[in-house]
Amino acid sequence: MEEWNETYEQWLEWMDQGAYLNLREDLNEENPANVAEFLEELPVEKKLFVFRLLSRDMAADAFSFLDNDTQEMLVTSISDNEVRNIVDNMFLDDTVDFLEEAPPELVGKVLRNTHPETRKLINQFLHYPENSAGSLMTVEFVHLNEAMTAGRAMELIRKIGLDKETIYTCYVLDRKNRLIGVVPLRTLLLADEKTRVGELMEEDVIRVTTLDDQEEAAAVFRKYSLMALPVVDGEERLVGIITIDDIVDVIDEETTEDMEKMAALLPSDDEYLKTPVTKLAKNRIVWLCVLMISGTLSSMIIGGYQSILDEAVQLATFIPVLTGTGGNAGSQASAMIIRGMALDEVRPRDSLRVLGKEIQVGLICGMLLGTLNMVKQTIFSPATNVMVDLTVSISMGAVVVVAKAMGCLLPIGAKVCKLDPAIMAGPLITTVVDAVALLIFFNIASSLVL
Amino acid sequence: MEEWNETYEQWLEWMDQGAYLNLREDLNEENPANVAEFLEELPVEKKLFVFRLLSRDMAADAFSFLDNDTQEMLVTSISDNEVRNIVDNMFLDDTVDFLEEAPPELVGKVLRNTHPETRKLINQFLHYPENSAGSLMTVEFVHLNEAMTAGRAMELIRKIGLDKETIYTCYVLDRKNRLIGVVPLRTLLLADEKTRVGELMEEDVIRVTTLDDQEEAAAVFRKYSLMALPVVDGEERLVGIITIDDIVDVIDEETTEDMEKMAALLPSDDEYLKTPVTKLAKNRIVWLCVLMISGTLSSMIIGGYQSILDEAVQLATFIPVLTGTGGNAGSQASAMIIRGMALDEVRPRDSLRVLGKEIQVGLICGMLLGTLNMVKQTIFSPATNVMVDLTVSISMGAVVVVAKAMGCLLPIGAKVCKLDPAIMAGPLITTVVDAVALLIFFNIASSLVL
Repeated sequence: MEEWNETYEQWLEWMDQGAYLNLREDLNEENPANVAEFLEELPVEKKLFVFRLLSRDMAADAFSFLDNDTQEMLVTSISDNEVRNIVDNMFLDDTVDFLEEAPPELVGKVLRNTHPETRKLINQFLHYPENSAGSLMTVEFVHLNEAMTAGRAMELIRKIGLDKETIYTCYVLDRKNRLIGVVPLRTLLLADEKTRVGELMEEDVIRVTTLDDQEEAAAVFRKYSLMALPVVDGEERLVGIITIDDIVDVIDEETTEDMEKMAALLPSDDEYLKTPVTKLAKNRIVWLCVLMISGTLSSMIIGGYQSILDEAVQLATFIPVLTGTGGNAGSQASAMIIRGMALDEVRPRDSLRVLGKEIQVGLICGMLLGTLNMVKQTIFSPATNVMVDLTVSISMGAVVVVAKAMGCLLPIGAKVCKLDPAIMAGPLITTVVDAVALLIFFNIASSLVL
Repeated sequence: MEEWNETYEQWLEWMDQGAYLNLREDLNEENPANVAEFLEELPVEKKLFVFRLLSRDMAADAFSFLDNDTQEMLVTSISDNEVRNIVDNMFLDDTVDFLEEAPPELVGKVLRNTHPETRKLINQFLHYPENSAGSLMTVEFVHLNEAMTAGRAMELIRKIGLDKETIYTCYVLDRKNRLIGVVPLRTLLLADEKTRVGELMEEDVIRVTTLDDQEEAAAVFRKYSLMALPVVDGEERLVGIITIDDIVDVIDEETTEDMEKMAALLPSDDEYLKTPVTKLAKNRIVWLCVLMISGTLSSMIIGGYQSILDEAVQLATFIPVLTGTGGNAGSQASAMIIRGMALDEVRPRDSLRVLGKEIQVGLICGMLLGTLNMVKQTIFSPATNVMVDLTVSISMGAVVVVAKAMGCLLPIGAKVCKLDPAIMAGPLITTVVDAVALLIFFNIASSLVL
């Protein structure tokens, strides 16, 4: 990676000096991912110029590594001929990825420059629901039939292999194109030439259907340690494959989405630095408003117990630490459960076990924190009314238990209601726990302090 | 996946009925990942019995899919002979994974039953730092030399291929075992038999070193869309490869760790349901204590402004909604920055741009929330002193701006200080913002209300 940093600086220097011949030579020998990174970071007015320094092959290779904005900017500016070169050389899933995000006029420009057969496939792919296995798959795979010999299969792979995104797993289809087996290239390679594919293949093929969610596909990859996963339609016909490098993107995307929801943000696919301020604000203001309005509940509760506060205004000073601790305790529980459910380690049927655990954890943490608070107050604030200290400590223990219980139940509840558990995280839990904490606090105060 | 659920139920039924012959037959034909799942869910006293129903091959295959607890329990109970069968059939990286977590007596039992050469390798691997590329790699890879022909290379692969974790990418070494090139099996397969490997190979091989962090390795996989990544030692000698399925595990692990830190938990590798209550409590209590103690700062601030509260006790009712909104606004900003840094989209050198964005977003959100609060109060609580409402609204705007700024600066600051940015998330930000929010609030109150 350090080597690449030096190359990068060198290229910038050549740009400044106008040493474009050097730049061109170097660009065309570099890794396409690095060329794409260089293009992305260039000022807009120079992107097209540098892109045109690339050879046809490099242009197509680098294009599939570019972010959507740069891709759109380039496709808008280049000729139909150049578009054709790129699309012809890209894997279908990369083309579809680009088109899913592109504005209609660019989709038109690309489809106009595509072979009719590919165009039909692209149109079909664009109709799969977003985030479905269908929208993620590619059609470049090797398929064989049962009766073929290993030798014949290897010949076939040699002939067509170069165009396929992966030739390392071959799929065996029956006459109706239904998936009946799978055979790794490794097995074909090591087998006697005359053995029939039918004898070499494994029959129980793990698969997903086009309409399955991409998270489901990722879960299958995780569980079975796969490198590629076949996708079938409603009639069990093989229509595509998903490769593991695309699954890495899915995992990153889904995790980002979870983290955004957990932080009370509307999820977005855009990179932070490339998102305009207004869009950032829009993604945040919704939850901030909802939470502020629901936070009013806490104000109303405090208002309702005004008389207690008037009697012992000292109590008010403990509100933030009590609600804060409750919120933290709840956030901890919800984060663990949300993550556990995302990795399929915790399921709704485990609710009772989870609740049991959380209540025990809550009791341990609550008692420790309550005691710690009592000790701290006795040493550092001996002047405070002991009954006030006792109220705070007892409330602290109770609030932590309740917060833990709510922190695990709300995400599981969301899952049961087919909502995304990730919204039941820190911010929402904190707001709910605030209100409950205040009720507990004032009720204990009214019996102990008054 | 549904089919598997039915099989699972069938197996449980056979267990109850004592139909072990049926069970054995079925187990040995199932996918090893499913067999491992079944074993994991069985009660402890039945695990060993069922494990012994497995054929030698299936026992070894299923073992590498098992969680650490079940692996340890089995290795403790089985004979040296059985241990040898498993270790002989596992890939080296899976063996090392198991040994890294195992107690010393089990490490001894395994090493005793390993070929001396493998034992040497294992010992070497166990010395790589945890979470380094070295601890993640496997030694099962194919290596060629420049002078070989493609035909000879294919012959070699046929002969040794079956034992290698991946034969799809072959590495070219010089006489001193230094990595000088890479050639995909696909290229060898499609090339003329007589072409020399030196002509087919690509020379600029992307690589990591044994001591690089696994996160670095994951970043390289992401950027270059790789399926396997070679690992070299300090002398550029090839010592292992990392395959992408292991990277998926790394990504999941690192994300879980980030989420745990972001929710003020000590990170842990254990699955939630398998972690004992005391350990869960231990992982949580540390941060809860730290945050409770720092939360005392807020209490002290409120205490310090007691005189203002005495004058206008109404102010107290707005404390939770103000600190709550500030905490939420800060959590949003920090979550975006932490995630952006984890994906390498935001770097410390972007600090000023990020701060600029966050202040603008803060101003937009802050003004909207302040206005919303004013409108809400005027309509629903016309009785409240207008100056109190104004204090709350102005504070709200100011607090949101400050919270956004702190939410982005603290994680970047942590990164600069070589700390994990993930600890500067929701809970910590909330606690800090609470104190700042109160200072802002009481200062504005003292000029407007008194």
